[in-house]
Amino acid sequence: MQTIHINASAEYDVLIGEGLLDKSGELTAKVVRPCKCLLVSDDTVDELYGDRAQISFTYSGFDVERFSFPAGEASKNLDTLAELLNAMGEAQLTRSDLVVALGGGVTGDMAGFAAAIYARGMRFVQIPTTLLAAVDSSVGGKTAIDMPFGKNMVGAFHQPALVVTDTDVIRELPPEQLSNGSAEAIKCGVLNDPALFALLESGNWLDRVDEVIARCVAYKRDVVAEDEFDTGARAFLNLGHTFGHAIELLSGFTMLHGQAVGVGTLMAAATADCPEDMLRRLAACLRANGLPTRCPYGAKELAQAALSDKKRSGGSITLVLPEAVGKCRLEKLPVSALPGCFEKALNALEALAL
Amino acid sequence: MQTIHINASAEYDVLIGEGLLDKSGELTAKVVRPCKCLLVSDDTVDELYGDRAQISFTYSGFDVERFSFPAGEASKNLDTLAELLNAMGEAQLTRSDLVVALGGGVTGDMAGFAAAIYARGMRFVQIPTTLLAAVDSSVGGKTAIDMPFGKNMVGAFHQPALVVTDTDVIRELPPEQLSNGSAEAIKCGVLNDPALFALLESGNWLDRVDEVIARCVAYKRDVVAEDEFDTGARAFLNLGHTFGHAIELLSGFTMLHGQAVGVGTLMAAATADCPEDMLRRLAACLRANGLPTRCPYGAKELAQAALSDKKRSGGSITLVLPEAVGKCRLEKLPVSALPGCFEKALNALEALAL
Repeated sequence: MQTIHINASAEYDVLIGEGLLDKSGELTAKVVRPCKCLLVSDDTVDELYGDRAQISFTYSGFDVERFSFPAGEASKNLDTLAELLNAMGEAQLTRSDLVVALGGGVTGDMAGFAAAIYARGMRFVQIPTTLLAAVDSSVGGKTAIDMPFGKNMVGAFHQPALVVTDTDVIRELPPEQLSNGSAEAIKCGVLNDPALFALLESGNWLDRVDEVIARCVAYKRDVVAEDEFDTGARAFLNLGHTFGHAIELLSGFTMLHGQAVGVGTLMAAATADCPEDMLRRLAACLRANGLPTRCPYGAKELAQAALSDKKRSGGSITLVLPEAVGKCRLEKLPVSALPGCFEKALNALEALAL
Repeated sequence: MQTIHINASAEYDVLIGEGLLDKSGELTAKVVRPCKCLLVSDDTVDELYGDRAQISFTYSGFDVERFSFPAGEASKNLDTLAELLNAMGEAQLTRSDLVVALGGGVTGDMAGFAAAIYARGMRFVQIPTTLLAAVDSSVGGKTAIDMPFGKNMVGAFHQPALVVTDTDVIRELPPEQLSNGSAEAIKCGVLNDPALFALLESGNWLDRVDEVIARCVAYKRDVVAEDEFDTGARAFLNLGHTFGHAIELLSGFTMLHGQAVGVGTLMAAATADCPEDMLRRLAACLRANGLPTRCPYGAKELAQAALSDKKRSGGSITLVLPEAVGKCRLEKLPVSALPGCFEKALNALEALAL
């Protein structure tokens, strides 16, 4: 088991290793005195892993109740949040009790947000069951729900008390889910870690998934320690996301987050006038991990969709632009420059037939 | 104009004086660079003061939009919050924009909470228009909405960027509203400030309302500086609230918050074995300010209602018990002791025919 310590407004450990699901209660009891806890999952994860988690927490002295909701990004909304909060009220949770988020990004974001606002804040533990959640969303304290006017537009910064990642659970994921998560790992490689990028380029890293996760979490640890509340360096983590969110939105969320972020990262590189070999290398890496390299939408519609992105501050937007594998820069642009950026990126990719 | 500086996770000023509503935009522009802002009020306050606030903010360079909702505690719920958040989205607010809460406790609590969670947190300014909001709820950063399972059960700690209290607006309040707010001021007197209590005992303090507000805010400043997140000394501010919330809940919120807190403070004093003359003095002070001194509910139903109070931590509850005017103590009791406390208080008050 690897332990990565996160030092933010709250300090906590990210534990990564085999067989941790069945020890999750025991591991949690080391940092949270046994109390009442609500185990939150979507219905798919609840059926696969809910009993094992409940047994572990119960065995360690927690008084466990369960809440599940229909799987999918469409559930990450105010209605499901209200149901979850009411379930917490019915379970008579107090602010010294615990929420356990067992699942992917949707579960972690929503259960984390519920924990942030119930009784003005209670503790929660993340048990990520997708690669995407393990490498990215379970660490760093960003919680949120989607609103009709934008993704993640309502939320809070609320750090978990512990993150427990069972690599056996990650290895059991269907290929599409592994592929989806690999996009955020590729993003980390492009941002900061050429060795990680090289490992991902092989497309053959499942037996080293603990290393992939640990490298991503270590990078996120450094960024969050520097800029927990996203007013500076944390903007780097948005690489591929301005483009990606626009693609996701236009697809009506039929495209997975990682698929969109993958293409988005490639488009960001094309916008940045990256050397041709770097663009080709990045496209090959995406393909090796089962990710698309084509954006099916036009520049104008993409720009319009991106305008609803909260990262826009007043009349400007900050893009993360790759210069080389392991090196990116931030560039603040007026919102009016967006359609031009999208067009430039689409043209560059078309010229290279990527 | 008086200025009281609050030093919490964010620092800000509370400004108290005559004619400040028409200067509210100008005063805000000194701490928030003019930007887009949403002015939030209930429909009563919107009609009375909305135009004046909008003119002041517009004149100072803010791009103002307005949102109002039906007046009353019943609006402080998830449905109204959702409408408010959607209005913020439609106004395309970003996290560098501003929310202005113009109104009483309901408006401040709900608009403050919306500002806390929209885009994971944006700035807000409080312009309290009730005495209760001026002396208590507008300062200290507690924001919340009510849930079916309890009052203020979902919320956040989120400090305002500025509080602007126009004492002319406070003086124009109907007697019932002044009476309602005086209960929280009496609470401050009992907790910490015999001179404030003496002023309130006279029942004749409206021409010195600036002093009443400033004394309450100064006390709250000290408590919040010591314990912003309510894990220690801030519990003192709950004097009268465990009893009061139970009464409010049983009345179906037909009893105003201040009326309930007034009786609650008297019941807390009776629970604490206060000397008879102190109980009589407190009851007289409540009456002098048009507040009731009788609790129309029985001990059992009160205890049951109090159990849904979030201040309960696990199996215990912390009561604030007055010993003298200006001196209180905290007492942690098992939840099972509550019915006995309520019965003791009711009997003591009946014995004195209070």
